[in-house]
Amino acid sequence: MMVRRLLTKLLLRPEDVSPSRDDFEVVGVFNPGVARVDGEVVLLVRVVERPVERRPGFTGLPRWDASGGLIVDWIPDQQLDAIDARVVKRRDDGLVRLTFTSHLRLVRCGDGRAVREVSGPLFLPEAESEEYGVEDPRITPLGDRFYVTYVAVSRHGPATALASTTDFRTFERHGIIFCPENKDVVLFPEPIGDSYWALHRPVCGTPFTRPEMWIARSPDVMHWGGHLPLAVSGEEWRSGRVGGGAPPIRVPEGWLVIYHGNRQPARPGDVGAYYGGALLLDSNDPTRVMGRMAEPFLTPELDFEVAGFVPNVVFPTGIVRDGESLLVYYGAADACTAVAEFSERELLDAVAACPG
Amino acid sequence: MMVRRLLTKLLLRPEDVSPSRDDFEVVGVFNPGVARVDGEVVLLVRVVERPVERRPGFTGLPRWDASGGLIVDWIPDQQLDAIDARVVKRRDDGLVRLTFTSHLRLVRCGDGRAVREVSGPLFLPEAESEEYGVEDPRITPLGDRFYVTYVAVSRHGPATALASTTDFRTFERHGIIFCPENKDVVLFPEPIGDSYWALHRPVCGTPFTRPEMWIARSPDVMHWGGHLPLAVSGEEWRSGRVGGGAPPIRVPEGWLVIYHGNRQPARPGDVGAYYGGALLLDSNDPTRVMGRMAEPFLTPELDFEVAGFVPNVVFPTGIVRDGESLLVYYGAADACTAVAEFSERELLDAVAACPG
Repeated sequence: MMVRRLLTKLLLRPEDVSPSRDDFEVVGVFNPGVARVDGEVVLLVRVVERPVERRPGFTGLPRWDASGGLIVDWIPDQQLDAIDARVVKRRDDGLVRLTFTSHLRLVRCGDGRAVREVSGPLFLPEAESEEYGVEDPRITPLGDRFYVTYVAVSRHGPATALASTTDFRTFERHGIIFCPENKDVVLFPEPIGDSYWALHRPVCGTPFTRPEMWIARSPDVMHWGGHLPLAVSGEEWRSGRVGGGAPPIRVPEGWLVIYHGNRQPARPGDVGAYYGGALLLDSNDPTRVMGRMAEPFLTPELDFEVAGFVPNVVFPTGIVRDGESLLVYYGAADACTAVAEFSERELLDAVAACPG
Repeated sequence: MMVRRLLTKLLLRPEDVSPSRDDFEVVGVFNPGVARVDGEVVLLVRVVERPVERRPGFTGLPRWDASGGLIVDWIPDQQLDAIDARVVKRRDDGLVRLTFTSHLRLVRCGDGRAVREVSGPLFLPEAESEEYGVEDPRITPLGDRFYVTYVAVSRHGPATALASTTDFRTFERHGIIFCPENKDVVLFPEPIGDSYWALHRPVCGTPFTRPEMWIARSPDVMHWGGHLPLAVSGEEWRSGRVGGGAPPIRVPEGWLVIYHGNRQPARPGDVGAYYGGALLLDSNDPTRVMGRMAEPFLTPELDFEVAGFVPNVVFPTGIVRDGESLLVYYGAADACTAVAEFSERELLDAVAACPG
């Protein structure tokens, strides 16, 4: 069953955003968390920057230092192997570093289809566990607060931390809720039964599995247990890895989950294309997959999706309902932020057509 | 400061234990959880077995099937690469399987220095998440129950699950409390402040770090958050990985933690030697390391420690107090179970001598 985009709008490119410092350049503004706040669609968007300076024979690796702010470690090139545009590996111990650092900014989008205002750096790394950056926020309203899950990257690996806010001006930090390596954590927007629920995406050091989506429950959003893998392996477009995308939304049939799949790359070192997929989970027992689209509904095909910092990536991270439409916000090619509009009914019919 | 073994007793060898089925052979009986129950020292010991049959050109990989019990997948050798004695990798997709399966049995040890009785298979895999085995139990008394953390290994990776018992005859399962890849989870034996606490050992898929020990807190032992890395990297004997060993015990100076360190192997595929080390954590804030022995107090040196299924491994997993002594139970060479006796005072003095 075919699901067509009704509209696609490129919202933000790297050149639309100034760096946090003059000696840095913005290489990406993507993977936005999304919420409707006082009637307006707002994004928390990940801004990726790196040093402008090039020192022949050296690679500059940025990190946030608790005392000194943003600093750059200049490492001789012969000590490093480039893995891809994002990651280098030290030859002596095989450990990796990122070539960039990330922080978050607020973007006000009116009805959700155009950018009205972009803030300065708003949510910055502030602990050793965030020294390589804060990445890929997802926003879920729960009670009278907005909860933001985000990736905290450091020498200890990529973990998922939690913050909350009422006004998107100040944030309360709640620490790491999913230990390394875990990304793509999305919270369900209401308790189900006597628990809060989250999807998460642990990555094993020992390759027993490709990265899979898991589900967990919590009494308080801070502490998580009851971990179970969600049964969604399968087609080639998601043969490499799958992970949560936008926080689930309640639909008549259950919970609609927008997630990403990644095609297993042909060669080690390749990243492989990323797609957007859709799942339906049971209304009262979200560990049960009730439907899934066999094909992705979002595929890299536009210029800014097939070319960029990492080519061929569409990476949905937020969703808002707008009448009979769903606005799906996504990162494109690890460089830009865009929104695609879909008919909610068309998407739901396509998901329900293929039982889990 | 030198810490000497006062006594070492080899308690169990593979040949002391019969397999769960006639067509299997026991290759290891090691890594015991330990508790004092009604005055007697009891162990829950991991029994590792594999098929006896050899089919030329094939490797037999055992697993527990929810309906069929223990079954063997016979895989053509040309589809597999051997990683080490424990692990094979499929050539087509790079994913791994274990060459054996594990279950748990109860061992009654009287005063702790000799085996009185070994049960038959007591705690067996029973879910898909345990299909490759249940491994490496650690036992902590909390309230009127004994809590057992154990590794559940499956196609989804090695995770840590929780069970509890009052009598070591029947167990209640509480599901996965630390998602893959996470092993070496030990619970503190009482709440500290308003939380329960655990040490755990996540392993990242992306090599930002060598495997490290983390600490987490819980309102109920079932749900965990507030994850923080514990600062204990350093000397070469623990350059490869570190992980919790025995559940912490309360001492006048704080919490004594017996853990393991692994020397970073010289070549990929080597396992590298394992040692026992000791840490002291703050009494009221166990995230703070107050002391640590620079050198291991337990080193593979006896015959059954330097040779076995995996050579040069001492892997402490349980501890009981016996007057002024500490009895440290450990797996030797991934084959045998042994106990080493130490003076508690000598060990504590050595830990306190080297501030964290």
